[in-house]
Amino acid sequence: MSHEPRVLLGPGPSNVHPRVFQAMISPILGYLDPDFLLAMDETMARLRYLFQTRNEFSVTLPGTGMAAMEAAVCNVVEPGDEIVVGIHGFFGQRMAEIVERHGGTAVRVEVEFGQVVGVDQIEKALDEHPSAKMVGVVHGETSSGIGQPLAEIGKLVRERDKLFLVDTVCSLGGAHIPVDEFLIDICYSGGQKCIGGPAGISCITLNERAQEVVQARSKPVDTWYLDLMLIKKYWFADRVYHHTAPGPMVFALKEALGIIQEEGLEKRVARHNKVGDLLKEGLTDLGLELFGDPANRLSMLTCVMIPEGADDATVRGRLLKEFGIEIVGGFGPLKGKAWRIGLMGYSASERNVHYLLAALKEILPG
Amino acid sequence: MSHEPRVLLGPGPSNVHPRVFQAMISPILGYLDPDFLLAMDETMARLRYLFQTRNEFSVTLPGTGMAAMEAAVCNVVEPGDEIVVGIHGFFGQRMAEIVERHGGTAVRVEVEFGQVVGVDQIEKALDEHPSAKMVGVVHGETSSGIGQPLAEIGKLVRERDKLFLVDTVCSLGGAHIPVDEFLIDICYSGGQKCIGGPAGISCITLNERAQEVVQARSKPVDTWYLDLMLIKKYWFADRVYHHTAPGPMVFALKEALGIIQEEGLEKRVARHNKVGDLLKEGLTDLGLELFGDPANRLSMLTCVMIPEGADDATVRGRLLKEFGIEIVGGFGPLKGKAWRIGLMGYSASERNVHYLLAALKEILPG
Repeated sequence: MSHEPRVLLGPGPSNVHPRVFQAMISPILGYLDPDFLLAMDETMARLRYLFQTRNEFSVTLPGTGMAAMEAAVCNVVEPGDEIVVGIHGFFGQRMAEIVERHGGTAVRVEVEFGQVVGVDQIEKALDEHPSAKMVGVVHGETSSGIGQPLAEIGKLVRERDKLFLVDTVCSLGGAHIPVDEFLIDICYSGGQKCIGGPAGISCITLNERAQEVVQARSKPVDTWYLDLMLIKKYWFADRVYHHTAPGPMVFALKEALGIIQEEGLEKRVARHNKVGDLLKEGLTDLGLELFGDPANRLSMLTCVMIPEGADDATVRGRLLKEFGIEIVGGFGPLKGKAWRIGLMGYSASERNVHYLLAALKEILPG
Repeated sequence: MSHEPRVLLGPGPSNVHPRVFQAMISPILGYLDPDFLLAMDETMARLRYLFQTRNEFSVTLPGTGMAAMEAAVCNVVEPGDEIVVGIHGFFGQRMAEIVERHGGTAVRVEVEFGQVVGVDQIEKALDEHPSAKMVGVVHGETSSGIGQPLAEIGKLVRERDKLFLVDTVCSLGGAHIPVDEFLIDICYSGGQKCIGGPAGISCITLNERAQEVVQARSKPVDTWYLDLMLIKKYWFADRVYHHTAPGPMVFALKEALGIIQEEGLEKRVARHNKVGDLLKEGLTDLGLELFGDPANRLSMLTCVMIPEGADDATVRGRLLKEFGIEIVGGFGPLKGKAWRIGLMGYSASERNVHYLLAALKEILPG
């Protein structure tokens, strides 16, 4: 072993259950091996449970959560398309940038870091851009620790007959995000946060409405690797070669999804809520100030202001070196001003909260 | 364990050394953890050895070999650019398709399956398309078992002051491909063939000439996930977040690269040549006919015609069920007519050749 284990309490990657590691080193199978095809089918079934969807097309993608964001955007966007992007942090900004990379026009509905986008703001944008093709938002903003309410936006977007795209990289598996009930047309997540799998694989689900839009494109998707209809041909009956499936990642994610089913989504969300609250109480007791709109703080990612007299790099360095704990610094306007503390998946335990609080108590001044 | 191990003798994925599995389950590190940054640096150094290059920019990519193909193409191609693509099989065709997805014009220099592209053909194409920006070829065509000679094309392309792009997904780590000596400007490979790592990660190297072309683009790359200059910012001094590094894949590939250095590239290529010859002799002794130009057959991927009286699916099914051996069927014009037998990385052993030949002897008619 070339390095010591860490207690991973940043915004991901998180620690994984030993069973996930065990699954990762399952004997390697060919990408058309009958046993591998069975594993793919089982993975899809488990993804439908996780996404709380009946969407047949619920698959893994051979890249990180950022690959999933790009896939979700680029399969829909054609040059000239208008896409309304609700932005309440870094990852919303990135979604808008990706829209533009693919020739679309991002209609930015931006709020301050720490706030959430109002349904009225989305409504105004749709009024002003009636030909917009899709509305995209990030649920859990890993950059701010804030969760975007989804249900009302979902209703609005459906009424206007647009597509609703939701990024749940930070939150899926740790928050209640019923894709069908919230009228989400395209939803994706990464493997390595609340889902409890490894980094390097992601997952996505599309309903029929979304697939019809993708299939009605006038030109092929402008990337080949993330062309969802080609990927679908590999996951379903045709089994047409697209890429060599990342077997170890698929086995690992499948196991992580199995663990989610065993725990049960409801209990798992409750666990994330419980440890998130415990952390926030503990930080407040230490005299620290939490960041952002109290009504919409995420359970799995807490953004906390760095107190007077504490040096960002020194504190994080001591946490890592002396305690083996990783927390991560702030992003954008919070750079050098806040820490981001994740409690995700297997890392989301009371033990980790108590350990971190004890370490901070020892390190912080006063 | 949900399935039995296989002897993987298809065109990838191949079996991996147990040390690669062990590295894959190293404790997970944050993507900016000092120990992880050290692992990235060490991986780059080992990639330079593998590519036989002094290119500083030699990194892994967070996707399969197909992601690397797309990255290599899309970072160079701008709408309207002409790219000469030498095509001697399926993957060359795909390279041309990817050029077109990104708005370029693929100048196809196509030869029959089983043959190689002549330097005179490339020269003619460059004469006819003097403004072409790049020449791309696939070295080892996994679809035909044929290896494209590179050195003369490299000289020609440099004389004409174009970029030379070479796909070595099938062959790097098992064939002699000195990137600098062959005047290759952009070279990439996948993790899971002769390199002996897992599927899901790939690697790429760009020299200064290539990077200058990428940096001189008039518009950003039309994908975000595979934007090499953003990826470079994460791998080098800036360490700017781009994606959450697929830690387990990086550790696994780093270990596979370490094994290559310990064995030595020259010895490793000799091993691939030796077992490839042994297989070809054995197949010929069984009365089977090898496919394609005898002067350019690959060592690590042998394409052999299915003999009279043998049913493709039946033979492969029995190999898999009774012997635990995977070989794979033909592609394109060879579908149903040929088998593709890989001897790659850890799978490239005399033991595997003898076992496969014994199994075929038992299964094949008369």
